[in-house]
Amino acid sequence: MTGTLTIAGLGPGSDALVTPEVSAALASATDILGYAPYVARVSPRAGLTLRPSDNREELHRASEALRLAAEGGQVVVVSSGDPGVFAMASAVFEALEQAPQWRDLPIRVLPGITAMLAAAARAGAPLGHDFCAINLSDNLKPWAVIEKRLRLAAEADFAIAMYNPRSASRPEGFGRALAVLREAGCGERLVIFARAISTPDEKIETVTLNEVAPEMADMRTLVIVGNSQTRRVGRWIYAPRQVR
Amino acid sequence: MTGTLTIAGLGPGSDALVTPEVSAALASATDILGYAPYVARVSPRAGLTLRPSDNREELHRASEALRLAAEGGQVVVVSSGDPGVFAMASAVFEALEQAPQWRDLPIRVLPGITAMLAAAARAGAPLGHDFCAINLSDNLKPWAVIEKRLRLAAEADFAIAMYNPRSASRPEGFGRALAVLREAGCGERLVIFARAISTPDEKIETVTLNEVAPEMADMRTLVIVGNSQTRRVGRWIYAPRQVR
Repeated sequence: MTGTLTIAGLGPGSDALVTPEVSAALASATDILGYAPYVARVSPRAGLTLRPSDNREELHRASEALRLAAEGGQVVVVSSGDPGVFAMASAVFEALEQAPQWRDLPIRVLPGITAMLAAAARAGAPLGHDFCAINLSDNLKPWAVIEKRLRLAAEADFAIAMYNPRSASRPEGFGRALAVLREAGCGERLVIFARAISTPDEKIETVTLNEVAPEMADMRTLVIVGNSQTRRVGRWIYAPRQVR
Repeated sequence: MTGTLTIAGLGPGSDALVTPEVSAALASATDILGYAPYVARVSPRAGLTLRPSDNREELHRASEALRLAAEGGQVVVVSSGDPGVFAMASAVFEALEQAPQWRDLPIRVLPGITAMLAAAARAGAPLGHDFCAINLSDNLKPWAVIEKRLRLAAEADFAIAMYNPRSASRPEGFGRALAVLREAGCGERLVIFARAISTPDEKIETVTLNEVAPEMADMRTLVIVGNSQTRRVGRWIYAPRQVR
């Protein structure tokens, strides 16, 4: 049997947000690889090997997935959210670039509901106008690049979705990001903290940028900074469609 | 029975990309409103009234949906893709702002697979690093705002997802957008044209920005301009995770 490699997005947490396409891929898999908390979302069954691994092992995990597929496995690499947004898809293509012998393997990428879409839906419609998505982790890029992008995003008046705002190993980055945006004149903008949306730990809160304390975010939080027009109606936060 | 209003994303086209949460909402709806081609994706059944309407009638459609819910309907407003990304959710909250009598209605927004995620998955992983999403329609904002955002997005080295690149009523905007990006030095960047992804009309093509002709896009096309690092591996296009 020919092996295949599928890179699938599990969505933000709830099974009700997993696409039928992804559910079908999980049901016919022989091997599932991914960061341990994501692999734990897949139910064990006969004929399926679950292969959890640590964070920061993306490239090794990707090579392992390619090898298993080359040996004939129906291999699925799982990411939370969407696999193409700050997740495993890029790592797999990097691994593929280093391993020309696997170029002809059948590969599919299956999209998922990425964290910013789930967060935006719960808050209202803060991404209803032009926006950007920035990964605040500086594991893979210099902090100066992050700062520059934040400044330009503020100048462009994009809403800004911030992924991985804050971790135990680098707690200071989020505070620096807030300082950049305050200097750029965004102090009155609305900021949404959306934590673990669609899971039992779900929590959502909106304040102005001036009121934000860095401790309000952790690695399970997706932060959306509204644009200059973003406003409240009742309990909802939305970006008007029109700009004059 | 208490009326409810649900704003639901149908994803890019295939039923395999509709979340179970959205399918359940459609199954219990009494009324479905939306742009006619999207309403046509919902199967008729007893007890369900389909209420298609024209494009550019978003605010009127939103008010109608609120009114039907206030009268006790289980009302679903459908958008293609995700309802929060250049779609109906913002219009509903605008209508709600104008109609304080409906502030207490139970409203839910259900996310969907937005066009850029489906397009990116088919192409590889062009949104694997920081990116932005810009609506090229100038119905609701001045062209100068679009140009400014494109220039700043190029300077930030974001990948750029362009929604609504080109319509019959305003065919010239996309050509102007390309000119802005060429002036900004993006001529060698890879550009993905993803048309009607996950439907029988699906087509995907990648060229460099210098090779793009404006006629390559229409209103069913989602365009992704890669960042300066975006590259090919075999038939795949991806953004490396690392920037130095």
